[in-house]
Amino acid sequence: MRSKDLDRSRELLLNCSRPLLVTHVAPDGDAVGSLLGLGWVLWALDKEPVLACQDPLPRRFDFLPGFDEVTDRPSGHFDLLVSLDCSDPGRMGQIGAYPGVRGAPLLNIDHHLTNLEFGVANLVDVGAVSTTQVLYRFIRALGVPLDGRIATCLLTGLVTDTRGFRTSNVTADVLRVAVELMEAGAPLAVITRNGLDRRPLGALRLWGAAFSRMEVDDGVVWVGLPLAVQQAIGHDGCGDAGLANMLIGVEGMHVAVVFTEQEDGQVEVGFRAVPGFDVAGIALALGGGGHTLASGCLVPGPLEEAQQRVLTMLREDLARQRGQAPVDDGRHPQSG
Amino acid sequence: MRSKDLDRSRELLLNCSRPLLVTHVAPDGDAVGSLLGLGWVLWALDKEPVLACQDPLPRRFDFLPGFDEVTDRPSGHFDLLVSLDCSDPGRMGQIGAYPGVRGAPLLNIDHHLTNLEFGVANLVDVGAVSTTQVLYRFIRALGVPLDGRIATCLLTGLVTDTRGFRTSNVTADVLRVAVELMEAGAPLAVITRNGLDRRPLGALRLWGAAFSRMEVDDGVVWVGLPLAVQQAIGHDGCGDAGLANMLIGVEGMHVAVVFTEQEDGQVEVGFRAVPGFDVAGIALALGGGGHTLASGCLVPGPLEEAQQRVLTMLREDLARQRGQAPVDDGRHPQSG
Repeated sequence: MRSKDLDRSRELLLNCSRPLLVTHVAPDGDAVGSLLGLGWVLWALDKEPVLACQDPLPRRFDFLPGFDEVTDRPSGHFDLLVSLDCSDPGRMGQIGAYPGVRGAPLLNIDHHLTNLEFGVANLVDVGAVSTTQVLYRFIRALGVPLDGRIATCLLTGLVTDTRGFRTSNVTADVLRVAVELMEAGAPLAVITRNGLDRRPLGALRLWGAAFSRMEVDDGVVWVGLPLAVQQAIGHDGCGDAGLANMLIGVEGMHVAVVFTEQEDGQVEVGFRAVPGFDVAGIALALGGGGHTLASGCLVPGPLEEAQQRVLTMLREDLARQRGQAPVDDGRHPQSG
Repeated sequence: MRSKDLDRSRELLLNCSRPLLVTHVAPDGDAVGSLLGLGWVLWALDKEPVLACQDPLPRRFDFLPGFDEVTDRPSGHFDLLVSLDCSDPGRMGQIGAYPGVRGAPLLNIDHHLTNLEFGVANLVDVGAVSTTQVLYRFIRALGVPLDGRIATCLLTGLVTDTRGFRTSNVTADVLRVAVELMEAGAPLAVITRNGLDRRPLGALRLWGAAFSRMEVDDGVVWVGLPLAVQQAIGHDGCGDAGLANMLIGVEGMHVAVVFTEQEDGQVEVGFRAVPGFDVAGIALALGGGGHTLASGCLVPGPLEEAQQRVLTMLREDLARQRGQAPVDDGRHPQSG
């Protein structure tokens, strides 16, 4: 985050009067939290922001102040466009193409490594765990006092993007931000209960089907989810990321894979690894992408053949990984 | 925590030479973390502590330094007995009756509301989220420097007893302790991955069976687990608490109930409620106990009849609760 960008962002925000704030399609907790959080900051500054998202906000975030203020159809003219948690302009969906923002400067606030820096000012910190953490610093720089509403929205992004302070990028500094947000009135237990633990019945039914179908071989656990099973449950396609995260917790596993058959016959593949193993390579080789410990790709069906092909590749890849390097399962904490 | 007890505890610990540290039967993360954490403190003080637990430590804690040092058969004579995370002496199991501690003073370190204060010194703080939080303050008072090993053990208790900072007793002060432990070298991500997310395959298979059997009616979700289903899965009886916690996360539910048929034909009943509802009353009426939001009891079988009886009682109880008070579902954060 360059100070030039910080200055320019502050200037854009303080000088606007009717900004359009947009977060990404298929919004998650950080998208919703950063959208509403910045909304409350602008309301406190006596601006008239409009908050927009192409897709409906997940109901589990209905505890957030301002939840009902978000529209999918902005109207009128805006003198500033602010994109939140979007790595590229396409992530704004239709809202990014709304005619009423034509000519308005774009302020890009995000934390993704892949951010394209497409704004006239880019408040992008790839070291932050969430866009709300970027916002937290920005708000401090703006001098707007943190109130309970702002703090609740910001902590929601922090908690959901780290899956409850679980990811490896959670440093003492991140927890220190959480401390300040709690002191400003953010209710951590309410946020985790709603933002992380609240799930539609269908998601648990899908997990039921998945856990009953788990297969395990040589450090790999996998599940195949045929379309028919998903349809019988009435699954809406959400919650598979959580499923892969559950599977990689199985004692003794090095890699977990979820194969989800799509309506068009293709198969979505989600990989997870424990520290010491790498699933970025196999996803990339299959035309997908991701990180060392979490990656994914889309491969041709049918499901059974896709599973066999991917699992064969994975076994060869893991044999190579095990041969190459001593396995560090990340279970030894630093001492001293 | 009275300063008299703090002084006496410091004196006991500094003057001993061969203390026996004991944690409770069926040890959890706080039991293991407080046992090993105090062990490292005493080793740093050049004492010769022996660490004991009647039951084997769960394998998911094998990342903790000193994990292999714990015995179920202490030998020789001890000049101090320290009970950790035990609300009464019976929680120490057979170890509490070991003849080699006869005549030795007992130092009782715990955080349970129900602690019987059975020691010559009782370092009991019912406001602490874990026994390791009590230990943290004690270590500060002792002046022993926190190293990575001690900090890792203490943070493990903090993380597991709060289910990853989820429980309602997690204040900003608790997170501040976590910050200091991380700065002393405790690896939060390793602790959450192993201490919270690592599960035997059988636990997920049981969840698979459970989620496939979920029944839902009027804000109540329940699952019955016949002995035959548990045996087919090879379930070892652990992990049901996690199951009830998952169920209460289902969108729109007020109460979740898990009925687990026991080998003797009785039925273990676990209740969970969302804030605004109370399951302490029904558990108490059925001869059990617990808290407002989490309680349990043991009722006579057979399973089907037990379910019907308990669910009928629960429906009446909930009708009364809904009639009595406006439902506060805890989803409105404080603002301002």
